[in-house]
Amino acid sequence: MKGTVLYGPRDIRFEDREMPRIEQPTDAVIRITLTCVCGSDLWPYRGLQPIKGPQPMGHEYCGVVEEVGSAVKTVKPGQFVIGSFATSDNTCPNCLYGYQSACVQREFVSRAQAPILRVPLADGTLVATPGMPSEDLMPSLLATSDVLGTGWFAADAANVKRGSTVVVVGDGAVGLLGVLSAKQMGGERIIAMSRHPKRQELAREFGATDIVAERGEAGVERILEMTRGVGADSVLECVGTQESMTQAIQSARKGGHVSYVGVPHGVAFKGEELFFTLVHLQGGPAPVRRYLPKLIDLVLSQKIHPGKVFDLTLPLQEVAEAYRAMDERRAIKALLRP
Amino acid sequence: MKGTVLYGPRDIRFEDREMPRIEQPTDAVIRITLTCVCGSDLWPYRGLQPIKGPQPMGHEYCGVVEEVGSAVKTVKPGQFVIGSFATSDNTCPNCLYGYQSACVQREFVSRAQAPILRVPLADGTLVATPGMPSEDLMPSLLATSDVLGTGWFAADAANVKRGSTVVVVGDGAVGLLGVLSAKQMGGERIIAMSRHPKRQELAREFGATDIVAERGEAGVERILEMTRGVGADSVLECVGTQESMTQAIQSARKGGHVSYVGVPHGVAFKGEELFFTLVHLQGGPAPVRRYLPKLIDLVLSQKIHPGKVFDLTLPLQEVAEAYRAMDERRAIKALLRP
Repeated sequence: MKGTVLYGPRDIRFEDREMPRIEQPTDAVIRITLTCVCGSDLWPYRGLQPIKGPQPMGHEYCGVVEEVGSAVKTVKPGQFVIGSFATSDNTCPNCLYGYQSACVQREFVSRAQAPILRVPLADGTLVATPGMPSEDLMPSLLATSDVLGTGWFAADAANVKRGSTVVVVGDGAVGLLGVLSAKQMGGERIIAMSRHPKRQELAREFGATDIVAERGEAGVERILEMTRGVGADSVLECVGTQESMTQAIQSARKGGHVSYVGVPHGVAFKGEELFFTLVHLQGGPAPVRRYLPKLIDLVLSQKIHPGKVFDLTLPLQEVAEAYRAMDERRAIKALLRP
Repeated sequence: MKGTVLYGPRDIRFEDREMPRIEQPTDAVIRITLTCVCGSDLWPYRGLQPIKGPQPMGHEYCGVVEEVGSAVKTVKPGQFVIGSFATSDNTCPNCLYGYQSACVQREFVSRAQAPILRVPLADGTLVATPGMPSEDLMPSLLATSDVLGTGWFAADAANVKRGSTVVVVGDGAVGLLGVLSAKQMGGERIIAMSRHPKRQELAREFGATDIVAERGEAGVERILEMTRGVGADSVLECVGTQESMTQAIQSARKGGHVSYVGVPHGVAFKGEELFFTLVHLQGGPAPVRRYLPKLIDLVLSQKIHPGKVFDLTLPLQEVAEAYRAMDERRAIKALLRP
């Protein structure tokens, strides 16, 4: 089998890898139908996050179960399944509180840009669809695995409710699906921060009512102008830099809600500054598993079409080009077909 | 009139001051019945927070209205009133959202350790009691002005609910009243972090079910032991240092709630560390005005006795000794009678 490995900055190779097999009785092995490149893959790809050695890549996946370990009870060979980027037993206290991305047995999936994947804790990690979904829904189902689940968490953690004024900082795929999620949760005014025409268009299609091209202080000023000087109820920070985080916090109204879902890189919150904003803050690796059943339903009933974030489709063996296209912002998000 | 002025580290003087008078039509002038020293007064007293020059002190107060400005409608001379340390118009968007401590017209009160006080925005800041309360309730009514209101906000912002496991970091008066507040909100297990026998006793009286004397990493370990390795649902940080904040965050369960109500001094939250805890975080100057009517009711109906935090009573002219007693931790909180 060939799989994707990052060797160093901008050095992605598609090379021979050992064939995954059942290692633990709780494992499943699945044949990947679709996978993709995540915005978070770009941090190590760009050399902004160190790697210790050759790093197998990929954590968004859907596919058909090939084999399960002896302890797996709910997932069966032949089923079409989607799983989170974080494995979970779905039975530990953290899971039961809805934070499966902090499961006490959590592992982060990292070999999904490949034709075959071993998934630990299959019963708690994977969700099977009723029957085999139609081909055209596959990209949207793949999206539930991380990018939509993360956008959904961003909107949920930012307390988006019917009637909310929402700001989304970041026009990557997560930000765009944060817009879609905010719309689903009843957000009334949804302001997408973007200066990229194609992304602006998709943001509007997903439910953005306003687009703001300004960034940083100018972006904050614009949001304050648009909200009678008050700021937004909910701000979704979908980038992970100090600049975007500061912008997000300053765009919220006093006592508003700010979520952050990109792993923060070099970000610090100054206690005293944050204090006087009175904002609620929640971030973290999205507990996608909590949302998967609902998100899969929304996709299967065609109420949402998150797969539209994939604007480039490549055969898996061209994975290096997929990274390049996203790195150069030629593509919002690249779909890979094994 | 004589009032309290801080000249520099540990240099409190009770000296001649100009008599407060109505300056704006929205002002009231009140005769202070009781005032006190706040834990936050100790930051500049100890030289840990710079002052620009002689600084009039005091922001917790209750008393009788002497005079009101021409625009004041709801507050009348002769009424007994309590106000927040932050003035508020109670009509701006921030106030209407319940964040009166971020009122667009906010001023921080700072001359209340005196017999007479001018209160700006009287209609939006002061709450009058029905009739003149009995003498024995006065200390508890004074407490609603800040220390109880702040403890209440700490419990509220940490999402304390029926059945919650709660940790309170800090055994100052705010922390102790955080315990009382958590009890009122239905907290089931309330763990007070304290190594001071008198404060432990009061914590138990206010509703603490457990006392933990360990601090820092040892304190976190103890909390994890007590919660099957999970951590607490709600953690109230009532100190404001980096050590206590780190301890608070690490004591919460994944996705739990942490509040912080002491002005953070030199505190920074590291983005990546906070991210993986998934905690909800909210802090800020407590919107006491939001809670005042409810807290006053609880005191008048004698359901709560927050005035028990005052374990030292002095005549106002001995205010310097009140500061010394709190600085040296001989007193939890010092009550001052003009």
